[in-house]
Amino acid sequence: MLVVHKYGGTSVGDVERIENVTNRVAKAREEGNDVVVVVSAMSGETNKLIGFAEHFTKEPAKKEMDMLLSSGERVTAALLSISLQARGYDAVALTGRQAGIVTDDTHTYARIESIDPSAVKNAIGEGKIVIVAGFQGINKSGSVTTLGRGGSDLSAVALAAAIGADQCEIYSDVDGIYTTDPRIEPNARKLDTISYDEMLELSSLGAKVLQNRSVELAKKLNVKLYAKSSFSDDVGTLIAEESSMEAVLVSGIVLDKNQARVTLRGVADRPGIAADIFSKLAESNINVDMIIQNMGTDGSTNLGFTVPQSEHENAKKVMESFDHEFEGMDFDEHVCKVSVVGVGMKSHSGVAAAAFTAMAKNNINIQMISTSEIKVSMVIDEKYGELAIRTLHDVYELDK
Amino acid sequence: MLVVHKYGGTSVGDVERIENVTNRVAKAREEGNDVVVVVSAMSGETNKLIGFAEHFTKEPAKKEMDMLLSSGERVTAALLSISLQARGYDAVALTGRQAGIVTDDTHTYARIESIDPSAVKNAIGEGKIVIVAGFQGINKSGSVTTLGRGGSDLSAVALAAAIGADQCEIYSDVDGIYTTDPRIEPNARKLDTISYDEMLELSSLGAKVLQNRSVELAKKLNVKLYAKSSFSDDVGTLIAEESSMEAVLVSGIVLDKNQARVTLRGVADRPGIAADIFSKLAESNINVDMIIQNMGTDGSTNLGFTVPQSEHENAKKVMESFDHEFEGMDFDEHVCKVSVVGVGMKSHSGVAAAAFTAMAKNNINIQMISTSEIKVSMVIDEKYGELAIRTLHDVYELDK
Repeated sequence: MLVVHKYGGTSVGDVERIENVTNRVAKAREEGNDVVVVVSAMSGETNKLIGFAEHFTKEPAKKEMDMLLSSGERVTAALLSISLQARGYDAVALTGRQAGIVTDDTHTYARIESIDPSAVKNAIGEGKIVIVAGFQGINKSGSVTTLGRGGSDLSAVALAAAIGADQCEIYSDVDGIYTTDPRIEPNARKLDTISYDEMLELSSLGAKVLQNRSVELAKKLNVKLYAKSSFSDDVGTLIAEESSMEAVLVSGIVLDKNQARVTLRGVADRPGIAADIFSKLAESNINVDMIIQNMGTDGSTNLGFTVPQSEHENAKKVMESFDHEFEGMDFDEHVCKVSVVGVGMKSHSGVAAAAFTAMAKNNINIQMISTSEIKVSMVIDEKYGELAIRTLHDVYELDK
Repeated sequence: MLVVHKYGGTSVGDVERIENVTNRVAKAREEGNDVVVVVSAMSGETNKLIGFAEHFTKEPAKKEMDMLLSSGERVTAALLSISLQARGYDAVALTGRQAGIVTDDTHTYARIESIDPSAVKNAIGEGKIVIVAGFQGINKSGSVTTLGRGGSDLSAVALAAAIGADQCEIYSDVDGIYTTDPRIEPNARKLDTISYDEMLELSSLGAKVLQNRSVELAKKLNVKLYAKSSFSDDVGTLIAEESSMEAVLVSGIVLDKNQARVTLRGVADRPGIAADIFSKLAESNINVDMIIQNMGTDGSTNLGFTVPQSEHENAKKVMESFDHEFEGMDFDEHVCKVSVVGVGMKSHSGVAAAAFTAMAKNNINIQMISTSEIKVSMVIDEKYGELAIRTLHDVYELDK
């Protein structure tokens, strides 16, 4: 088999942990596989470098930041290659550029445009274990670019597709995808498998195991993904297309505590008012999450949305510039978002109703509701967050 | 003027020191110059990375070491560029590759083969201050290479020549070249100017201010070099061709304590014996410094040489494999080398004689003597090293 492993910052956090990764890669090799390894910077390194830059300015140039931050992954790649060689394995370390990764010009958040896999393929052909510095590439004019936080996952998935790998294993400090956060619900169960779409909802909803863009890319390029732990021998969770067997109703429950709610009452129902408001928020770099609009009975509407708690004050300021357009504002920082995710919802009704019933039984007031084909999200008072998670986990029998 | 500045590891050792360098570069800019800055890794970084690699093996692959070690200079280049931009200067950071530096394939000790100065020149043309990561380049197949310890000096000199800079200023924590080590002789005097050849003798003899290869390259490419301190406003020392004025007799006195002496008595006078011995030492990576051979009276010869103290034991082992070729061996780790350097010696006799006389007056026994056109070196008991330096400094009136 041709496999791609990706190890995150905590998995390569010091020389002992790099030795641990060496063992894993060596084992995969001994089992007869061709192995390509994508690595992140040692944990703490990236933040240290950002701290240095911010000593000089809070807004360093993005091009310079890319040269600065791309150094960390090069260090890890070289060290892992040295460690494998010390054990007698033939290994080679490549930078993003040497691995053929070409991106667009969007420094610090570049998109991969193409990969020339020849250098990696040639090295595999020579029997080498190939170590690639994640998170980075170069643009067409030869400048170093980086792919944004979690970008090494993206490097791994894109490389796996480009070289035709059989699977891509993403290693972190958790051993897979759980039905919900085990720190909240001790009965949370690790999933053997989950679909790309469910995983996408889970990662954008706040489950931190896999970077969202990498799951999107894996879906698009049909890369078989595994989420595994570098500290255990657990098989992990497979993320792939839905199997032909009947899909489970609900796969997971997610709690996102980083939410603040904004509600505008009696918004003048003129065309373009929503566009004006959300354009202004976007200009101010405020990430709006859920958006709810209800038609009122008197020609005005109520408009609600959520933003990250850290952007709550900024959102307030932006809204004040619109205050002649609505009757009243209501802000609440003390909310959270609870979401139920499952591809089974597509073909089964009643999933949302069961959630609402369970909330009602526990006297939890639902402030906002938003649904997609495979997700039901509810904004509730943050003090009920954990209770809601445990209740829903129970309702959908996720421990079974 | 178009000037190249080069700042070493102690000059950019932390963010405060990078701010200090920012001030210096900004000042040169405000004075109307175009400025290209070559930087080393922050002091301690390179050793930290070497320590990581040596955790895995004492002999890491050189190609991997180059990827590992080249990261440090990239960090400094990006940070200095960010710092200059924060002050409102238009700056750009370039890696060795982006600055067009192409080397041969000798990883960890590569030679610069060519420089394509177009990227640097274009950036200067756009009014930018250009920051270049020192110590590194790429080879023709695109792998990262490094130029060996002190290689950033070499990057600076080579770039200065390639872009036709008016001068190249090498900044460190000392403010120029002294007649001898001021810690030994308080009357040591900073030289305003020194010739390339004298500087070459001084740096290869153990004066640590400028890397030897960079002085050679500066001579070859006729680059006007300044040795300056990044912590003072002293004009420093100019290293250039000898002026047309009469050269000074002696420029400096150097003490090298890292010497061990090996003497072979009664060496069989067969053709090729010296070649055999020194080839074997070279194969064992032992750096031989001085070599002295005297014809004996009975058809055999005495052969003496010096090696660094750390290689003394290895040299002993190599010599034991030749023990049938000579009558006896004599090793002494407790020696040092004292050298008198000056271009004036070329045309003046008596310089060496004055040195020998001064040694004799102080009862210092000279064990070995070696001379070149502009240098007299003497191996003596190490306990007399400092005395010899002060005596010779006085004899040649270097404090005047």
